[in-house]
Amino acid sequence: MAIQKPSIPKGTRDFSPVEMARRNYLFDTIKSVFRRYGFQPLETPSMENLSTLLGKYGEEGDKLLFKVLNSGNFLKGIEPEEVQAAVESDNPSVLGTKICEKGLRYDLTVPFARYVVQHQNELVFPFKRYQIQPVWRADRPQKGRYREFYQCDVDVVGTKSLLNEVELIQIVQDVFAALKIRVTLKINNRKILYGISETIGHADKMMEITMAIDKLDKIGIDAVNEELAERGLGAEAIAKLRPILELTGDNRAKLAKITEAIAMHSPTGAKGIEEVTTILDYTEALGVTLPVELDLSLARGLNYYTGAIFEVKAMDFPMGSICGGGRYDDLTGIFGMPDTSGVGISFGADRIYDVLLGLDLFPAETTQSVRALFVNFGGGEELAALKLMAEVRKAGIAAEIYPETVKMKKQFDYAQKRGILYMVFVGESEVASQTATVKNIMTGEQTPVPFGEIPAFLEQ
Amino acid sequence: MAIQKPSIPKGTRDFSPVEMARRNYLFDTIKSVFRRYGFQPLETPSMENLSTLLGKYGEEGDKLLFKVLNSGNFLKGIEPEEVQAAVESDNPSVLGTKICEKGLRYDLTVPFARYVVQHQNELVFPFKRYQIQPVWRADRPQKGRYREFYQCDVDVVGTKSLLNEVELIQIVQDVFAALKIRVTLKINNRKILYGISETIGHADKMMEITMAIDKLDKIGIDAVNEELAERGLGAEAIAKLRPILELTGDNRAKLAKITEAIAMHSPTGAKGIEEVTTILDYTEALGVTLPVELDLSLARGLNYYTGAIFEVKAMDFPMGSICGGGRYDDLTGIFGMPDTSGVGISFGADRIYDVLLGLDLFPAETTQSVRALFVNFGGGEELAALKLMAEVRKAGIAAEIYPETVKMKKQFDYAQKRGILYMVFVGESEVASQTATVKNIMTGEQTPVPFGEIPAFLEQ
Repeated sequence: MAIQKPSIPKGTRDFSPVEMARRNYLFDTIKSVFRRYGFQPLETPSMENLSTLLGKYGEEGDKLLFKVLNSGNFLKGIEPEEVQAAVESDNPSVLGTKICEKGLRYDLTVPFARYVVQHQNELVFPFKRYQIQPVWRADRPQKGRYREFYQCDVDVVGTKSLLNEVELIQIVQDVFAALKIRVTLKINNRKILYGISETIGHADKMMEITMAIDKLDKIGIDAVNEELAERGLGAEAIAKLRPILELTGDNRAKLAKITEAIAMHSPTGAKGIEEVTTILDYTEALGVTLPVELDLSLARGLNYYTGAIFEVKAMDFPMGSICGGGRYDDLTGIFGMPDTSGVGISFGADRIYDVLLGLDLFPAETTQSVRALFVNFGGGEELAALKLMAEVRKAGIAAEIYPETVKMKKQFDYAQKRGILYMVFVGESEVASQTATVKNIMTGEQTPVPFGEIPAFLEQ
Repeated sequence: MAIQKPSIPKGTRDFSPVEMARRNYLFDTIKSVFRRYGFQPLETPSMENLSTLLGKYGEEGDKLLFKVLNSGNFLKGIEPEEVQAAVESDNPSVLGTKICEKGLRYDLTVPFARYVVQHQNELVFPFKRYQIQPVWRADRPQKGRYREFYQCDVDVVGTKSLLNEVELIQIVQDVFAALKIRVTLKINNRKILYGISETIGHADKMMEITMAIDKLDKIGIDAVNEELAERGLGAEAIAKLRPILELTGDNRAKLAKITEAIAMHSPTGAKGIEEVTTILDYTEALGVTLPVELDLSLARGLNYYTGAIFEVKAMDFPMGSICGGGRYDDLTGIFGMPDTSGVGISFGADRIYDVLLGLDLFPAETTQSVRALFVNFGGGEELAALKLMAEVRKAGIAAEIYPETVKMKKQFDYAQKRGILYMVFVGESEVASQTATVKNIMTGEQTPVPFGEIPAFLEQ
């Protein structure tokens, strides 16, 4: 076979040992917070039946699903005419779903909903789970956007209690405090957005209005109003909306004003206001220090949210949302289990990674995986070194011996390039005196250390 | 959309919280040993270019690759005649490789070789990595055989030193000691198998002879000899082979006999004997207590092995090999990087999981993820409970509050089903006395614990 120049598919990545060490630090930190709050790990298969995935992410999402070709004779039972039609139509997606029954996971939410419904009789509700796994999307790859990337979701289903929203806010606070990233959390409520739409006489246009509001910061009030007119809102409705869009002040001031504007006109809106108020009351009473800001322009795209919505941004680094989520009242309905409310948030692992890297917040010890290199002198000294190293490892300290008897410079270079802190010399005189020479590569300092004390010395 | 009864593709699995907790215990144990020996984590993409995978696992392996359909118009540029031919031929594999450029990872070895070659200029050699990721094979699913399963590989490349083989044996010892599984390790060497073939005049038939020897235990010497004859070995060769197949005694006795039989006839065989001897010398000198047995009938299927081969079995549970590997001298050659020797072993996660489960060796605390449930009495008591719980979590203890004010029985059932050990009651009288009642669900014992002492009490 011809020799191939190796490469990987575009939009995918290898994670080198250094990147893995950093990612493990990130995931371990997040997981340890999740666990403290009583969330348990779950994993679902990489492949789901296409029927589970199709139609759950909109038309655009369907196109971005990676399909897995049926094994064996994938054309079996397909009529030549069907293939011909697909070739000619320039749109072979119908054929695609016939020759592929499986697809790669597109997110963690739909597989989670599928899992909950499938196992509803075994699960204890409220069911609290976290899930950290890769997902795949056939998006055009670009900077910061990959075709394989990790999602990191935490959800609770089977309870409408707002304590869960409060707990998610505490989790956000704890995760980013542990990572030393300063963040702000924006909160809104889909019921308020519905209430606004209802108040201005356009309950049917909630998504359009929400999307226009979403652009306020970028394009200004006049452009937003133009867009609303284009989307079919009359002058009166637009005039009614204006004071709501221009709400300012702290959370309590905004709540008072929005109550005045919509509570009388929309029972749903009033309910949303009450929910936000309750959540803010709890976070204050519990001394949550994370800045929580009510932002009526926060919309979040996903259609399945029905209550609170959240979004988190880093304060000291320019980056989009690094964490977001909300409450959904009927995610499991499509799989035949109605009336199961849930709430969850998703941490954007790749973006948080970039923030940590950009702000130089990865602890130095994260990537120092090996503590000591035992120099290989060969002969009887090698065996003495191997025995000492076994003791060091038994003490839980990562250590290596250079596997060949090569020049000192090569062994030193290896230790340095690997980021190993200590070199341990066990040569002839060291064996005679039962005392090794331990060199700190950073400082150059050399210390004689009796054999029995080496584990303790390296642990310092 | 019609409601779907949810299911997952055959041969795939969901991992429930309890299974995840057990799997994490297994993986964490293995990883901590790998790290202590200086191995570093690596991850490669789930999808590789099909050209990277095809031809690396034999014809059968090619068929078992899961192919990923090209996104967009996958039929673009395909002539209708090609499709027609594929439909008619009953073998659409050529078409498959045209409409699919990517495939799912089949093992961790080939992607590792691809990674090493692709990044050879950045890597520090010897390069020691471990990799724990799922792989996919379109095998017929059956008990214990899945289409998605985890492999758990540890390899070092860029050194021929036998110290690496010794280290892998130590790793096997440490991993299974930590897991409390008693195991035996069988060792052989491909060079000895070649030497045997060469000695009996059939160097060209090494794989056939090896495969026949492999069956000795099952079918006996006469049937093996018949099979060898069928495969083209003459009576003289078969007669020469017999005493080698009937070797008995301890490792040293076997080495002496096999030396006598082949060392003079085969320099390669002599080299293999020397390698095994060196490895055994080191393990003895280092006090390795793991039983290591030289087994000349150990063959292992993979063609790329060129030196030592290993296989590990559990002593107290009927199960095939739970761990295996060997040395390969030219795995990276196919990707354009010759003469790079490596050695590695792979731990069979699913099988080890089954052994741990079968022998009841998962520590009980593995699945006890939440320590305490705070009972929700609602009202002002709820807030007191929430504040106390925040202190408990701050101390690193996993705790929950029942999110709704429901009947005590429901909250108790929840705690019991979740396997939570303690229930913490913070009712009216407890708030008045600033002393909670803590109930141990296992024993039923109730203890009054002052608020400030709750974290310490729960940690006991």
